[in-house]
Amino acid sequence: MPTTLPDAARALLDAPNFADLATLMPDGSPQVTPIWIDRDGDLVVFNTAKGRAKHRNLERDPRVALSVIDKADPYRYIQIRGRVKEMTTDGADAHIDALANKYLGVESYPRRNPAEQRIIVRIEPEAVQVRTPRR
Amino acid sequence: MPTTLPDAARALLDAPNFADLATLMPDGSPQVTPIWIDRDGDLVVFNTAKGRAKHRNLERDPRVALSVIDKADPYRYIQIRGRVKEMTTDGADAHIDALANKYLGVESYPRRNPAEQRIIVRIEPEAVQVRTPRR
Repeated sequence: MPTTLPDAARALLDAPNFADLATLMPDGSPQVTPIWIDRDGDLVVFNTAKGRAKHRNLERDPRVALSVIDKADPYRYIQIRGRVKEMTTDGADAHIDALANKYLGVESYPRRNPAEQRIIVRIEPEAVQVRTPRR
Repeated sequence: MPTTLPDAARALLDAPNFADLATLMPDGSPQVTPIWIDRDGDLVVFNTAKGRAKHRNLERDPRVALSVIDKADPYRYIQIRGRVKEMTTDGADAHIDALANKYLGVESYPRRNPAEQRIIVRIEPEAVQVRTPRR
Protein backbone atom coordinates (compact mmCIF):
# COMPACT_ATOMS: atom_id res chain seq x y z
CA MET A 1 0.00 0.00 0.00
CA PRO A 2 1.29 3.48 -0.85
CA THR A 3 2.42 5.56 2.09
CA THR A 4 3.47 9.15 2.71
CA LEU A 5 6.92 10.63 3.26
CA PRO A 6 7.62 11.97 6.75
CA ASP A 7 9.25 15.40 6.99
CA ALA A 8 12.69 13.95 7.73
CA ALA A 9 12.51 11.88 4.54
CA ARG A 10 11.39 14.90 2.53
CA ALA A 11 14.32 16.92 3.85
CA LEU A 12 16.86 14.26 2.86
CA LEU A 13 15.33 13.89 -0.60
CA ASP A 14 15.18 17.64 -1.18
CA ALA A 15 18.84 18.25 -0.31
CA PRO A 16 21.51 17.28 -2.86
CA ASN A 17 22.15 13.89 -1.28
CA PHE A 18 22.89 10.83 -3.38
CA ALA A 19 20.59 7.83 -3.36
CA ASP A 20 21.39 4.21 -4.02
CA LEU A 21 18.66 2.51 -5.99
CA ALA A 22 18.13 -1.25 -6.07
CA THR A 23 16.26 -2.89 -8.93
CA LEU A 24 15.86 -6.55 -9.88
CA MET A 25 17.81 -8.28 -12.63
CA PRO A 26 16.07 -10.79 -14.96
CA ASP A 27 17.07 -13.66 -12.65
CA GLY A 28 15.61 -11.84 -9.63
CA SER A 29 18.98 -10.89 -8.15
CA PRO A 30 19.46 -7.29 -6.96
CA GLN A 31 21.39 -4.51 -8.70
CA VAL A 32 22.40 -1.24 -7.00
CA THR A 33 23.17 2.10 -8.68
CA PRO A 34 23.96 5.52 -7.21
CA ILE A 35 21.53 8.11 -8.56
CA TRP A 36 20.48 11.73 -8.24
CA ILE A 37 17.15 11.89 -6.48
CA ASP A 38 14.14 14.18 -6.48
CA ARG A 39 10.68 14.35 -4.95
CA ASP A 40 7.20 15.24 -6.18
CA GLY A 41 4.86 15.39 -3.19
CA ASP A 42 4.96 11.88 -1.74
CA LEU A 43 6.54 10.36 -4.85
CA VAL A 44 10.27 9.68 -5.09
CA VAL A 45 11.55 10.71 -8.51
CA PHE A 46 14.68 10.06 -10.54
CA ASN A 47 15.83 10.39 -14.12
CA THR A 48 17.48 7.76 -16.30
CA ALA A 49 17.88 6.97 -19.99
CA LYS A 50 15.98 4.42 -22.04
CA GLY A 51 17.68 1.08 -22.34
CA ARG A 52 19.88 1.34 -19.26
CA ALA A 53 19.95 -1.68 -16.95
CA LYS A 54 17.74 -0.02 -14.34
CA HIS A 55 15.17 1.04 -16.95
CA ARG A 56 15.03 -2.46 -18.45
CA ASN A 57 14.79 -3.93 -14.96
CA LEU A 58 11.94 -1.61 -13.99
CA GLU A 59 9.99 -2.36 -17.17
CA ARG A 60 10.06 -6.01 -16.15
CA ASP A 61 9.62 -5.63 -12.37
CA PRO A 62 8.53 -2.31 -10.82
CA ARG A 63 9.73 -3.08 -7.31
CA VAL A 64 12.56 -0.91 -6.00
CA ALA A 65 14.37 -0.04 -2.80
CA LEU A 66 16.58 2.91 -2.12
CA SER A 67 18.51 4.55 0.62
CA VAL A 68 19.51 8.18 0.93
CA ILE A 69 22.39 9.06 3.24
CA ASP A 70 22.69 12.60 4.60
CA LYS A 71 26.02 13.79 3.25
CA ALA A 72 26.31 16.13 6.23
CA ASP A 73 25.96 13.15 8.60
CA PRO A 74 26.23 9.66 7.13
CA TYR A 75 24.62 8.10 10.21
CA ARG A 76 21.38 9.85 9.29
CA TYR A 77 19.63 8.09 6.42
CA ILE A 78 16.34 6.90 5.04
CA GLN A 79 15.38 3.56 3.57
CA ILE A 80 12.45 3.38 1.18
CA ARG A 81 10.78 0.44 -0.51
CA GLY A 82 8.20 0.98 -3.18
CA ARG A 83 7.28 0.48 -6.79
CA VAL A 84 7.26 2.43 -10.03
CA LYS A 85 4.06 4.39 -10.51
CA GLU A 86 5.01 5.94 -13.84
CA MET A 87 7.88 6.14 -16.32
CA THR A 88 7.59 8.91 -18.90
CA THR A 89 9.68 10.87 -21.36
CA ASP A 90 7.36 13.89 -20.87
CA GLY A 91 9.40 16.69 -19.33
CA ALA A 92 12.39 14.39 -18.83
CA ASP A 93 14.92 16.69 -20.57
CA ALA A 94 13.93 19.65 -18.40
CA HIS A 95 13.98 17.38 -15.37
CA ILE A 96 17.57 16.19 -15.86
CA ASP A 97 18.58 19.83 -16.22
CA ALA A 98 16.83 20.61 -12.93
CA LEU A 99 18.73 17.75 -11.28
CA ALA A 100 22.03 19.00 -12.73
CA ASN A 101 21.18 22.35 -11.19
CA LYS A 102 20.41 20.76 -7.82
CA TYR A 103 23.58 18.63 -7.71
CA LEU A 104 26.10 20.55 -9.81
CA GLY A 105 24.78 24.10 -9.68
CA VAL A 106 24.72 24.34 -13.47
CA GLU A 107 21.98 25.38 -15.89
CA SER A 108 21.88 22.24 -17.97
CA TYR A 109 23.00 18.63 -17.68
CA PRO A 110 26.59 18.49 -18.96
CA ARG A 111 26.45 14.83 -20.06
CA ARG A 112 23.43 15.24 -22.33
CA ASN A 113 23.69 12.73 -25.16
CA PRO A 114 21.34 13.43 -28.09
CA ALA A 115 21.35 9.72 -28.90
CA GLU A 116 19.68 8.83 -25.62
CA GLN A 117 16.14 9.43 -24.53
CA ARG A 118 15.72 10.61 -20.95
CA ILE A 119 12.98 9.17 -18.74
CA ILE A 120 11.44 10.37 -15.50
CA VAL A 121 10.70 7.54 -13.07
CA ARG A 122 8.16 8.20 -10.32
CA ILE A 123 8.11 5.81 -7.39
CA GLU A 124 5.31 5.31 -4.91
CA PRO A 125 6.78 4.56 -1.48
CA GLU A 126 5.27 1.62 0.41
CA ALA A 127 7.64 1.46 3.39
CA VAL A 128 9.75 4.32 4.72
CA GLN A 129 12.21 4.16 7.59
CA VAL A 130 14.07 7.18 8.90
CA ARG A 131 17.29 6.43 10.79
CA THR A 132 18.78 9.11 12.93
CA PRO A 133 22.06 8.89 14.82
CA ARG A 134 21.86 7.58 18.38
CA ARG A 135 24.42 9.76 20.12
CA MET B 1 31.21 -17.27 -11.43
CA PRO B 2 33.39 -15.65 -8.77
CA THR B 3 35.60 -12.83 -9.99
CA THR B 4 38.44 -10.74 -8.59
CA LEU B 5 38.44 -7.15 -7.35
CA PRO B 6 40.34 -4.65 -9.49
CA ASP B 7 42.70 -2.27 -7.67
CA ALA B 8 40.25 0.65 -7.91
CA ALA B 9 37.58 -1.46 -6.19
CA ARG B 10 40.03 -2.54 -3.49
CA ALA B 11 40.96 1.08 -2.84
CA LEU B 12 37.32 2.15 -2.40
CA LEU B 13 36.59 -0.80 -0.10
CA ASP B 14 39.70 -0.21 2.00
CA ALA B 15 38.97 3.48 2.64
CA PRO B 16 36.25 4.37 5.18
CA ASN B 17 33.54 4.75 2.52
CA PHE B 18 29.97 3.67 3.17
CA ALA B 19 28.37 0.95 1.12
CA ASP B 20 24.71 0.40 0.33
CA LEU B 21 23.80 -3.26 0.41
CA ALA B 22 20.77 -4.72 -1.36
CA THR B 23 19.26 -8.00 -0.23
CA LEU B 24 16.01 -9.72 -1.18
CA MET B 25 12.88 -9.71 0.97
CA PRO B 26 10.75 -12.88 1.29
CA ASP B 27 8.56 -11.73 -1.63
CA GLY B 28 11.65 -11.19 -3.82
CA SER B 29 11.52 -7.39 -3.63
CA PRO B 30 14.76 -5.54 -2.89
CA GLN B 31 15.83 -3.93 0.40
CA VAL B 32 18.74 -1.47 0.73
CA THR B 33 20.76 -0.68 3.86
CA PRO B 34 23.82 1.53 4.37
CA ILE B 35 26.64 -0.49 5.93
CA TRP B 36 30.27 -0.32 6.95
CA ILE B 37 32.33 -2.37 4.53
CA ASP B 38 35.55 -4.34 4.62
CA ARG B 39 37.59 -6.60 2.37
CA ASP B 40 39.44 -9.89 2.75
CA GLY B 41 41.42 -10.55 -0.42
CA ASP B 42 38.80 -10.72 -3.17
CA LEU B 43 35.92 -11.13 -0.74
CA VAL B 44 33.71 -8.22 0.29
CA VAL B 45 33.02 -8.37 4.02
CA PHE B 46 30.56 -6.75 6.38
CA ASN B 47 29.28 -7.25 9.91
CA THR B 48 25.70 -7.50 11.07
CA ALA B 49 23.73 -8.98 13.95
CA LYS B 50 21.70 -12.17 13.98
CA GLY B 51 18.02 -11.70 13.26
CA ARG B 52 18.27 -8.38 11.43
CA ALA B 53 16.36 -8.08 8.16
CA LYS B 54 19.48 -8.41 6.04
CA HIS B 55 20.67 -11.48 7.94
CA ARG B 56 17.27 -13.15 7.62
CA ASN B 57 17.16 -12.21 3.94
CA LEU B 58 20.63 -13.65 3.30
CA GLU B 59 19.83 -16.91 5.07
CA ARG B 60 16.98 -17.35 2.59
CA ASP B 61 18.64 -15.96 -0.56
CA PRO B 62 22.40 -15.33 -0.71
CA ARG B 63 22.31 -12.94 -3.67
CA VAL B 64 23.39 -9.36 -2.95
CA ALA B 65 24.36 -6.19 -4.72
CA LEU B 66 26.18 -3.23 -3.31
CA SER B 67 27.62 0.06 -4.32
CA VAL B 68 30.42 2.00 -2.68
CA ILE B 69 30.68 5.72 -3.35
CA ASP B 70 34.01 7.49 -2.85
CA LYS B 71 33.25 10.07 -0.17
CA ALA B 72 36.02 12.25 -1.57
CA ASP B 73 34.34 12.22 -4.99
CA PRO B 74 30.77 10.90 -5.20
CA TYR B 75 31.05 10.46 -8.98
CA ARG B 76 33.61 7.73 -8.42
CA TYR B 77 31.95 4.52 -7.30
CA ILE B 78 31.88 0.77 -7.65
CA GLN B 79 28.96 -1.56 -8.19
CA ILE B 80 29.29 -5.18 -7.13
CA ARG B 81 26.95 -8.13 -7.52
CA GLY B 82 27.67 -11.39 -5.82
CA ARG B 83 26.54 -13.89 -3.25
CA VAL B 84 27.24 -14.87 0.33
CA LYS B 85 30.10 -17.33 0.63
CA GLU B 86 30.01 -17.57 4.41
CA MET B 87 28.26 -16.15 7.47
CA THR B 88 29.97 -16.82 10.78
CA THR B 89 30.05 -15.63 14.37
CA ASP B 90 33.75 -16.61 14.58
CA GLY B 91 35.77 -13.45 15.14
CA ALA B 92 32.70 -11.26 14.61
CA ASP B 93 33.11 -9.28 17.85
CA ALA B 94 36.72 -8.41 17.04
CA HIS B 95 35.66 -7.60 13.48
CA ILE B 96 33.00 -5.04 14.47
CA ASP B 97 35.61 -3.40 16.70
CA ALA B 98 38.00 -3.24 13.73
CA LEU B 99 35.25 -1.62 11.63
CA ALA B 100 34.52 0.90 14.41
CA ASN B 101 38.22 1.73 14.35
CA LYS B 102 38.20 2.15 10.56
CA TYR B 103 35.08 4.35 10.48
CA LEU B 104 35.05 6.08 13.86
CA GLY B 105 38.67 5.95 14.93
CA VAL B 106 37.77 4.28 18.23
CA GLU B 107 39.06 1.12 19.89
CA SER B 108 35.77 -0.71 20.23
CA TYR B 109 32.29 -0.55 18.73
CA PRO B 110 30.31 1.92 20.85
CA ARG B 111 26.89 0.34 20.12
CA ARG B 112 27.80 -3.12 21.26
CA ASN B 113 24.69 -4.80 22.62
CA PRO B 114 25.38 -7.92 24.70
CA ALA B 115 21.94 -9.22 23.74
CA GLU B 116 22.85 -9.44 20.07
CA GLN B 117 25.16 -11.86 18.34
CA ARG B 118 27.46 -10.31 15.72
CA ILE B 119 28.02 -12.07 12.39
CA ILE B 120 30.67 -11.63 9.72
CA VAL B 121 29.26 -11.93 6.21
CA ARG B 122 31.74 -12.73 3.41
CA ILE B 123 30.58 -12.08 -0.14
CA GLU B 124 32.07 -13.53 -3.30
CA PRO B 125 31.85 -10.93 -6.07
CA GLU B 126 30.53 -12.14 -9.43
CA ALA B 127 30.32 -8.83 -11.31
CA VAL B 128 32.29 -5.68 -10.52
CA GLN B 129 32.01 -2.33 -12.26
CA VAL B 130 34.23 0.63 -11.47
CA ARG B 131 32.83 4.03 -12.45
CA THR B 132 35.18 6.95 -12.62
CA PRO B 133 34.17 10.55 -13.29
CA ARG B 134 34.18 11.62 -16.93
CA ARG B 135 35.52 15.14 -16.62
